[in-house]
This record gives sequence, structure tokens and C-alpha cells, in this order.
Amino acid sequence: MNVRGKPMRTIWLEPDGGAVGIIDQTRLPHDFVAVQLGTLAEAAHAIRAMLVRGAPLIGATAAYGMALAMRQDASDRALDASCATLLATRPTAVNLRWAIEEMRALLRPLAPGERAAAAYRRAGEIADEDVAINRAIGRHGLGLIEAAWERAGKHRPVELLTHCNAGWLATVDWGTALAPVYAAHERGIPLHVWVDETRPRNQGASLTAWELGQHGVAHTVIVDNAGGHLMQHGRVDLCITGTDRTTASGDVANKIGTYLKALAAHDNGVPFYVALPSPTMDWSIEDGVRDIPIEERDATEVTEIAGRLSDGSTARVRLVPEGSPAANYAFDVTPARLVTGLITERGVCPASRAGLLSLFPERRQLMAGE
Amino acid sequence: MNVRGKPMRTIWLEPDGGAVGIIDQTRLPHDFVAVQLGTLAEAAHAIRAMLVRGAPLIGATAAYGMALAMRQDASDRALDASCATLLATRPTAVNLRWAIEEMRALLRPLAPGERAAAAYRRAGEIADEDVAINRAIGRHGLGLIEAAWERAGKHRPVELLTHCNAGWLATVDWGTALAPVYAAHERGIPLHVWVDETRPRNQGASLTAWELGQHGVAHTVIVDNAGGHLMQHGRVDLCITGTDRTTASGDVANKIGTYLKALAAHDNGVPFYVALPSPTMDWSIEDGVRDIPIEERDATEVTEIAGRLSDGSTARVRLVPEGSPAANYAFDVTPARLVTGLITERGVCPASRAGLLSLFPERRQLMAGE
Repeated sequence: MNVRGKPMRTIWLEPDGGAVGIIDQTRLPHDFVAVQLGTLAEAAHAIRAMLVRGAPLIGATAAYGMALAMRQDASDRALDASCATLLATRPTAVNLRWAIEEMRALLRPLAPGERAAAAYRRAGEIADEDVAINRAIGRHGLGLIEAAWERAGKHRPVELLTHCNAGWLATVDWGTALAPVYAAHERGIPLHVWVDETRPRNQGASLTAWELGQHGVAHTVIVDNAGGHLMQHGRVDLCITGTDRTTASGDVANKIGTYLKALAAHDNGVPFYVALPSPTMDWSIEDGVRDIPIEERDATEVTEIAGRLSDGSTARVRLVPEGSPAANYAFDVTPARLVTGLITERGVCPASRAGLLSLFPERRQLMAGE
Repeated sequence: MNVRGKPMRTIWLEPDGGAVGIIDQTRLPHDFVAVQLGTLAEAAHAIRAMLVRGAPLIGATAAYGMALAMRQDASDRALDASCATLLATRPTAVNLRWAIEEMRALLRPLAPGERAAAAYRRAGEIADEDVAINRAIGRHGLGLIEAAWERAGKHRPVELLTHCNAGWLATVDWGTALAPVYAAHERGIPLHVWVDETRPRNQGASLTAWELGQHGVAHTVIVDNAGGHLMQHGRVDLCITGTDRTTASGDVANKIGTYLKALAAHDNGVPFYVALPSPTMDWSIEDGVRDIPIEERDATEVTEIAGRLSDGSTARVRLVPEGSPAANYAFDVTPARLVTGLITERGVCPASRAGLLSLFPERRQLMAGE
């Protein structure tokens, strides 16, 4: 998508064909800084310190990290050590593990002299595959936005609400929840996005608002408390969020607070869609509320916040009185009954076992309860 | 309630019998600063600049402001001018208007020489009346917490969730939503309060957490997004919030985001109560979502936030990228169907026309639709 009017991806091969470029997302939204990764260590740091985040982008960065490692030392020992280093950066990231195993399986049988070139080629493919999946999600989700525009009589912009950042910054390009938004924008459908700030890490206010602004999509930042009020007053035509993990029954784990927006959408007859690349499906789980463990993160993400001071520098400030404890649950689970549909790279389906099987029949034998 | 182990109110007459003491709530939670109001101008400033906030406390401050004015100049002209000055501080505050009209009606017929003493006496009564109302709300709400403790088998603390600050800081003492909490604490019932931080103005993180901590009530600050997840997992026994305005049918206008918590409570079978002093009833309105206008406040309350820097000073930081607009809706309306009951100074009743009439039969002729 565009930054300062020019198309970009979140990760790219530099013109020298060796180093890998990324955006330091920890500096957004106040500073736009591109960083060159020249070594395995730099790639591992970028993942660990969250210069890159979002499952698909983490996977692509790990794949390129393997390529950087092979450029330095393509021995068997270096190959195993590189895998271990990258795996340890974000232990619970599914795409990370997948990308590393994919690269290891490809490179192991090759002669050391062939490994670097093969690694760069496959890393590029992994990035392109993510873009293709997201573009397909965008194409399928576009139909939903077009339908909302029809319902609005085509005389005012479509009003869409999203939570957290499932935009192009979380992927290699297009994003998941925002891919339909960019597709509609490209098609010339007027639309406006309500951006939940998404406490505690504020990915909405800092990342979603930034990427929509850079691409020229109309949007307004709101606090997470405001969406219900907007829906009560007919100010939201549809919601689209991303997901970290979707169960075989269509339950959706996503950033904390997603469940509250789904409740409000249901209470007001507003369609609530979840966009997902099929690799984030967890076919082995049925009941998401019961069976998906919810990560608890450091309380300082709640008690402190970073922002820009009036002099242009950034600072962290404490929000909570000394002595008051805080708890920080990272995700919640939205039951399938509140989800109007799932937008996948194969099409849109009901958030149900039957709906998912209609698009992914080959997964039947993996499914919980089969 | 207690501050540093000593009982306090939010407003008091200083030992000299002339000046009025308040807590500068804009400095909380990081600094506890008491301020003396010696003149009408200082009282007006305290209301306008929100050193005091919360409808009941604003009313009491205005009443004392009239007393301070009469001490300076008890002429008819000064009386009228003082009323006008105070009325202009927060034009939409119902309690403010009520307290000023009450004082004007009392003082007008008196000889100027009698006005100051009468004004101090009546201001003190207005403060005491608020305390009595809130203590009664606490007594009635206590029964609900006791019932929750019974249901929990008395072998773990009662888990209560609240939104915004309807504590003693918003009143003269006890608070409304927190009055039952303080009553249960006094009774020795173990309880723990989940405190919604309450974006954008963070009254939960900064005021509710502070007052509960000072009084020794166990609590944990959470982001506004977290309550639904906690309720899904049985971690909340009941919710109690305050309200700015309740309709004749039991619809409740309160801080933005209250509606989302009520939806989650309803979805999970968690009782959701609203505490209100009857003066905040609006008997003339039936449908809250349709008929209560929702104030839009300055967007900088969303895009910037104040907190404490590591050096102990306070600072504002910007959270949103330059160029991204923000919207700031101050309240939302929770439909009566989501409210388990209303806790008033006369008792607990269903959130319905019939429920309200059972406690306030004399209001029938004021009611919308009668």
C-alpha cells in the first residue's frame, strides 16, 4: 500500500540483492524509519523487539532471516543454529514456526553452496504467497462492502469499523481485515473507517490510523468504548476484524475487546465479519472460549503508555496510581454465533463447521470431533 | 472515605468557618493536593477547571460558592451576579442549576445581613443530604453484594466490575456505584473490584483506582476491552455503574462504554446494576437511545493523554498520527432491558416504569406518556 504516495511492502529485498528492508513499526506512527537487516542476528532482533509484528510478516521476516544466515554461513551447523535462534524470538507464533520449518526442509537436502540462493528465492515466494492470499481476501470482502454501498443507496460513504491492526503492516501487503477496505478504495467506492484505538497497545490509533492515512482512506480514531454507541445510532454499516486463531466451529480469538464489538453489532443488526488467511485456522479445536488459552501480558502495557511530547520526542507516562495493580489479557474469544461470516482467501462462508467445510472440504479429517 | 488512613469528604468547611476546602482532582492520581477556596471566583474556577467534578460534588461546591460570595458582598446585586457566575461554569450540569436556584430562593427574601450565615448553613445541609442519599444507596446495594457472596459460597472474594468513577470523589462522600462497595468493605465482606480504565478521560484508572486504593479496597485496573473476557470466564459476580441520567423507562445514560459492559453482562448472565440518586432521574423522557442527546467533546481527549514521567513530573503525549481525525462521544445509553436493577436511596427496583413507580409513586404525573 502507499506511504507518502508511493507503493510499499512491509518487507523487501534491497537493490543489492542481499540485505532485507523493513519498516521499524515500533517508531510508528510518529516516525517512519526503514531499517536494513544484513544478518541473522538483525533479523532475529527485528522479530523479538517487534520492529515487525503480525503473524504473516513475522513468517516472512523469519524466512528472509534464514536467507541472511545462509549468506553468512551455509553449513549444516549454521542452518540448525539459525532455525533455533529464530524459533526462540517469539515462541508462540505459529507462522514463525511454519516458515522456519519450511525453510529447513527446503535447505537441508541442498549442498551448502546452493543454500543461500534457494533461501532467498523461497523467502521471496513466501512473501508473495502472503500477498496473494491477502489480495484474494480483499477481492472476496469487496463484495460485502459493495453490498453495503448498495444498501446505503450509494449516496454516502460506507461506514466500517475495525479493531486492532489487521492491515498491511501486519502482513507483507494488503492486510487481512483491511484488504477489503483497500480493494474497495481502489474500486472507487467511498468509505470511511472507524478505527478503535485498541488499548492497551493502541495498534489501532498508532498503526491502523497511520496506514489508512498514508494510503488516503478516510478514517476517524475512536476509543474502544465508542463503537456500541455508533452502532446504536446507525453509524456503522459493517465491522471487519482480523483473527489470531479460528476454531473448527468458527469461534474467533482476536485482540481483547473484539467480543464486545461483536456483541454490539449483534444487538444492532450490524454485520460482523472476520477476515482470515486459512493458515490461521485451528482445525483441532471446537470451543474457543473453553479451549483457547489467553495470553496474559505485562501489566505495564496497561499502567504506562508511550506517545509524542510537544517537543517531538517520545516518552512513556504512567497512567495508574502507584500501588494499584493492573491485569493485561491480550485476546478474547468471540463465539461463532456473533460472527456473520468469515472472509477467507477462498471466499466468504458462515462462521460454522458446515460453512468452513464448504470452503475447505479437505480439512474434514483434521477437524475436532470428526 | 479514607485518604492515607484518615476519613475525608471531597468538600469541607475549613476550621476558620469561612474558607472551603476541596481536593484538586485534576492532580490525581499522582498528587494529592487540597485547595482552599476563599472567594466566589475561586469556587467558580474550581468547577470550571474541573478541580471538582461529579454532579453531586459540583452542586455542593456551587452552594458553598454562594456562601463565599455572600461573605464578600450580600447585596441583591451581588446575589444575582453570583448566581450568574456559577451557572456559567458548567452550563449543562443539572445539580449545579438546582443548587444555585435552591440557594437563591433561600437567600433572596432574607435581609443582606442574614444571608452569609444562612448560606453556609444551607450549603452544609446540601452536602449532608448528598451524603445521606449515598449512604442509603450503599445500604441497599450492600444486599446485592451479600447475595453474591452467598452465591460464591463465602469462600472467595466477591468480584465486582465498575466503569468510570461514580465513587466518593464524584460526590461529597460514599459515592453512588461505589457506596455499596464501601458498605460491604465496612461490613467485612471480602471483595475485589475490576476497574475499567475508562477511556478517553481515564477516570477509572486515575480516580476509582486511587480512591479504592486509599480506602484499602482490593482492586485491579483493566483496559475497557477486558471486561467481556472476564465475564465469559466467570470472573465477575456483578457489575455496578453510576449514571448521569436515567429515563422513566429505566434507560441509563452513563460514560461511553457502559453499554458494551451491559451487553457482555447480559450475554453471560452477570447481574448489571446501576446506582443513582433520584435527583438524576429524568421523568420526562421515555426512550433514552432516541431522546438523550450525547455530548461530543474535544478530540484531543482521544488523541492525547496525560500521565507521569519517570522523573515525577506530568506530561501530555500524543497517541495518534498527525492528520488522523478523532471523535469523542462522552456518553452512551444502556437500554433498560440490559439493566438488572436500579439502586436508589429508596431501595432496589427493576429498571422499568413499573419498577420506578413502585419506589417513586409521587412521580407518576411527571412521567413521559402519562
